[in-house]
Amino acid sequence: MIVVMKKNAPEQDIDAVTERLKSEGFQVHISRGVEKTIIGVIGEGTEEVIRLASMQSVEQVVPVRRPYKLVSRDFHPDDTVVQVGNAKFGSKQVVVIAGPCAVEGHEQVMQAARVVHDLGLMVLRGGAYKPRTSPYSFQGMGVEGLKILAEARERFGLMVVTEAVDRESLNYVAEWADIIQIGARNMQNFELLKAAGHSNKPVLLKRGLSATIDEWLMAAEYIAANGNPNIILCERGIRTYETKTRNTLDLSAIPVVKQLSHLPIIIDPSHSTGQWSWVAPMARAAVAAGADGLIIEAHPNPTEALSDGPQSLSLPHLSELVESLRPIAEAIGRTL
Amino acid sequence: MIVVMKKNAPEQDIDAVTERLKSEGFQVHISRGVEKTIIGVIGEGTEEVIRLASMQSVEQVVPVRRPYKLVSRDFHPDDTVVQVGNAKFGSKQVVVIAGPCAVEGHEQVMQAARVVHDLGLMVLRGGAYKPRTSPYSFQGMGVEGLKILAEARERFGLMVVTEAVDRESLNYVAEWADIIQIGARNMQNFELLKAAGHSNKPVLLKRGLSATIDEWLMAAEYIAANGNPNIILCERGIRTYETKTRNTLDLSAIPVVKQLSHLPIIIDPSHSTGQWSWVAPMARAAVAAGADGLIIEAHPNPTEALSDGPQSLSLPHLSELVESLRPIAEAIGRTL
Amino acid sequence: MIVVMKKNAPEQDIDAVTERLKSEGFQVHISRGVEKTIIGVIGEGTEEVIRLASMQSVEQVVPVRRPYKLVSRDFHPDDTVVQVGNAKFGSKQVVVIAGPCAVEGHEQVMQAARVVHDLGLMVLRGGAYKPRTSPYSFQGMGVEGLKILAEARERFGLMVVTEAVDRESLNYVAEWADIIQIGARNMQNFELLKAAGHSNKPVLLKRGLSATIDEWLMAAEYIAANGNPNIILCERGIRTYETKTRNTLDLSAIPVVKQLSHLPIIIDPSHSTGQWSWVAPMARAAVAAGADGLIIEAHPNPTEALSDGPQSLSLPHLSELVESLRPIAEAIGRTL
Amino acid sequence: MIVVMKKNAPEQDIDAVTERLKSEGFQVHISRGVEKTIIGVIGEGTEEVIRLASMQSVEQVVPVRRPYKLVSRDFHPDDTVVQVGNAKFGSKQVVVIAGPCAVEGHEQVMQAARVVHDLGLMVLRGGAYKPRTSPYSFQGMGVEGLKILAEARERFGLMVVTEAVDRESLNYVAEWADIIQIGARNMQNFELLKAAGHSNKPVLLKRGLSATIDEWLMAAEYIAANGNPNIILCERGIRTYETKTRNTLDLSAIPVVKQLSHLPIIIDPSHSTGQWSWVAPMARAAVAAGADGLIIEAHPNPTEALSDGPQSLSLPHLSELVESLRPIAEAIGRTL
Repeated sequence: MIVVMKKNAPEQDIDAVTERLKSEGFQVHISRGVEKTIIGVIGEGTEEVIRLASMQSVEQVVPVRRPYKLVSRDFHPDDTVVQVGNAKFGSKQVVVIAGPCAVEGHEQVMQAARVVHDLGLMVLRGGAYKPRTSPYSFQGMGVEGLKILAEARERFGLMVVTEAVDRESLNYVAEWADIIQIGARNMQNFELLKAAGHSNKPVLLKRGLSATIDEWLMAAEYIAANGNPNIILCERGIRTYETKTRNTLDLSAIPVVKQLSHLPIIIDPSHSTGQWSWVAPMARAAVAAGADGLIIEAHPNPTEALSDGPQSLSLPHLSELVESLRPIAEAIGRTL
Repeated sequence: MIVVMKKNAPEQDIDAVTERLKSEGFQVHISRGVEKTIIGVIGEGTEEVIRLASMQSVEQVVPVRRPYKLVSRDFHPDDTVVQVGNAKFGSKQVVVIAGPCAVEGHEQVMQAARVVHDLGLMVLRGGAYKPRTSPYSFQGMGVEGLKILAEARERFGLMVVTEAVDRESLNYVAEWADIIQIGARNMQNFELLKAAGHSNKPVLLKRGLSATIDEWLMAAEYIAANGNPNIILCERGIRTYETKTRNTLDLSAIPVVKQLSHLPIIIDPSHSTGQWSWVAPMARAAVAAGADGLIIEAHPNPTEALSDGPQSLSLPHLSELVESLRPIAEAIGRTL
Repeated sequence: MIVVMKKNAPEQDIDAVTERLKSEGFQVHISRGVEKTIIGVIGEGTEEVIRLASMQSVEQVVPVRRPYKLVSRDFHPDDTVVQVGNAKFGSKQVVVIAGPCAVEGHEQVMQAARVVHDLGLMVLRGGAYKPRTSPYSFQGMGVEGLKILAEARERFGLMVVTEAVDRESLNYVAEWADIIQIGARNMQNFELLKAAGHSNKPVLLKRGLSATIDEWLMAAEYIAANGNPNIILCERGIRTYETKTRNTLDLSAIPVVKQLSHLPIIIDPSHSTGQWSWVAPMARAAVAAGADGLIIEAHPNPTEALSDGPQSLSLPHLSELVESLRPIAEAIGRTL
Repeated sequence: MIVVMKKNAPEQDIDAVTERLKSEGFQVHISRGVEKTIIGVIGEGTEEVIRLASMQSVEQVVPVRRPYKLVSRDFHPDDTVVQVGNAKFGSKQVVVIAGPCAVEGHEQVMQAARVVHDLGLMVLRGGAYKPRTSPYSFQGMGVEGLKILAEARERFGLMVVTEAVDRESLNYVAEWADIIQIGARNMQNFELLKAAGHSNKPVLLKRGLSATIDEWLMAAEYIAANGNPNIILCERGIRTYETKTRNTLDLSAIPVVKQLSHLPIIIDPSHSTGQWSWVAPMARAAVAAGADGLIIEAHPNPTEALSDGPQSLSLPHLSELVESLRPIAEAIGRTL
């Protein structure tokens, strides 16, 4: 890390900082400029950065090491491939996950699952536990919903991803589904992250609405540090001042994450835009930008949906979209 | 709610919308403009808004009712006063909570508690469970920390507020402390909110880093709807593009919340600014703006703090700040 | 527009609002709910919305008409095609503009122009007037720079786009170049917009760093309302809390703008990302999302660039990128 | 500045960077860590930072010097006091500026000016040139409006502040008024800043809607570097995701600016909140936080205002507010 001292910091304050660093076992290089003194420190930890920043005459502490390690490409140069059934997130294959926002009943899930299967897709989505902004909104079918998803899996040979909202639901999800989703609002629910780390199922980790890419990778580090290396990152829109779209889809996160981390990254164009007619162009853009997959809301009858109707594709629109993605995947040397 | 149809929406689409509304029991008024048709609807619910928005030719659905009810001033015009010991949040009294970010040991807490008591303050803060961005950072002392806080309470006659991070820790906090804090990162951890709603201790609910005021009040509604009306709101800075401060303290939230809700609101000037020298001016501003209280980080030795050192006041600085607040409270007709 | 009255608004306040509206010639429909009264108004203007909002007991005034008219698709359903030489912005053709950030000298521009021409591109960019954050940074070559660009145009048969920063420079740009660029920081420099409206050259209007899509279209409306219908919109990244990228490229703006307006929209992946290695994936994403063109920084020697070096592509990288765009354009039925 | 090289950067790339720095006359210190090499550089400029960042194997260039100089407290430790008539911005006096958003006519300005005078205030505001989002909104009375303001000045012994929107209007404003206002949307209109720098009247520089504090100080540096040291900074709310208030008033900017710069800073609580009932609490908060002044919208008849009616105080409310500010100013050792 680098410690920048304030202009005209007294010698004794510079000494105090360097003494402290040396006493903690760090090597120190001092560069004295005309105005400011800079202290280069070999090695660092989060705690040290915090403590130094509160010392007298310290203007700024600049971390040099990234705060994450297990998920960093610096320590693991090759791409991680997370395999779930035949779906390989992080390979040349672009994996499209589709299905309804919420599990609402048997018939609805089977209709969606059939289309997902018929389109040659491999993973079905659907929420059994729904974190809803309002306590008066439909909160999901719970275990009963998980069982419906499991039935669809058996019947159509699909893998299933669904969200867990606390330790208890995580146990159920790990039992009945193939991928555990951690939603945007729980990205920094560290107790849930630890529990996901102890699970043996892959985790789909959505980016928080106002999470920086560093914080998102730190959340992934929680899962990895607790023992689970099978993590799929999912960008789903960030909160900005723009109100035309529900959130602002940050597609630049794709190349940035690819540079910083070896983990696969997929895109959710449904929650970010909030309107079904904008889902298709953003899905195409995501594939062109190098996303390892997509997660798309589709519903047999969007107008009747108990959750997020306006952003759900009808099944014919889903079919149309998937067809339009193939030539784009090919154009960048990937398959769908 | 109001439904705005798209320009030149065909008559049959307008009919479909009105028929649907009538079939769900709503009364409907149609205003036909030269360009657009507007449908005024008496009554509304969250689900209906979502479903209508996905119907053909609907441009916009504008909710008229606020989504929260129990915490809304519309339904409860008088201020709620949350009393904890002698501290009355929401009264003429401005309640100052102070103490270290994290409980680090017995001596540290007793030193801080003694100063809090000597300054005439009534509530001690200190984290036993710490939600930390990095899995490698100090995660708190847990139950042992709660016991230290409880000892300080007995010894100095103080009330204690401390954070819960999941259902399990919430049970412990409810047992050992006087106010349960829900942190910013857990503001939309709905399972935790429900658990807090079932508790019999008051809840201090921090605003999420990117939560709108409406979402914050909806989170409070979760607690109230599950049975607990004793909620203290706490603004602690929101995430914006500005990087000089850790977050941007949104003091305008004070008059806005006072208008929308009957709940008390306090301000955390420590986490928002991230630098101790900016805490005092923002604390004074908060009191002048009408905050019902403050929650301030103070540490016997900020440079040694295991958590958030740079934003902690030393105990002499805390004392100075508290003295400077009294004349401001008086200037607006309140007491400290 | 729709006027929502506060809960329990007294009858006389409702009357005052309706009387005022009628006296200004509006037709009024009143819907009385159990809690709130809604007044539907046929027709509206910006001023009326502002004035009504400050009347007694008015809770909210919801505009129904979009504030822009000439640039709105409601009033002009067909796509506008802005033709500059053989480049047709808004047609099936995806127009790629390339060149250095700043004009630094004769040799630099000729080298870039030669590559632009050899790649089959039709428009050269390059700044002669540079709005720079620091008064101590290179401010551009001015008219001399314009002449170099004009020479490149003659020599290589290219069209030229370059930025104007005030009325005076706009006159020079209109004289020497083919497209007048209005930069992000001047998007709400209304005097400059008016001047651009009086010009007879097409205008490339960049979105402001924190401009909503509505404000951006209103800025375009300024140009159109002053007589110039040839406007090309350009999204170049918006300001958010994320700091890994220079700004957050809002590609969702493409389908949103296409729905609201008939104007062509192009994307600047260079300024938004701020790092050349992220330019190519975002350029491909933009084309896949339906952008009508791109504007890309490329420099014969990025390391020597006087402005924005890190985000400039070298000329070989530009060439590689352009080749990779062709199959994506084809995949969505367009040409490059 | 500090150059952080990428992990495992080849020796030749480290050499290339140091050679380049040395050839430009900089002194260089190299610290080799286990993973990364850090190059400390004595001295720096904006251009060098940009160029180095684009060199091979460079991960990050961290500027150490602030980019502004003339407005920096590092170079000018004492507070600057900008005196206009008897008003002293930056002294112990808290200067309250008040008046209508727009000059609409003779009677309106005289009524407002009389109240401003009777309250013992010294500066009148009022816009003759109005930068309006819509081309169809009232754009101000221009020179005629300036003359009305000048008459009010004579009649009531007030100083006058009013906005300039381009070089031409700036000349008129400098002729007829006492303080030239640069509005938020023009904060990075660098041509206007240069013109203001050449003027001999003090400049009130509003912060841009999405300007960082550093960019704002750089805009002030433009004015100072062009010869005008009399600059008053004005925070007026920044753009965030929150929509309840028009913008988010960033009061933390007061202590931050006071630390970084010697310039006075005032607060505009009217434009930021957008609702008159929230103006008073935020004005009180601003004074408590240490603002050197306020600029407040007040109108003889807010409901008739041609611009920003809902946020204007009526004159009796203005009077009430000013009285409530005095004890707060006294509480922090200042006068009003």
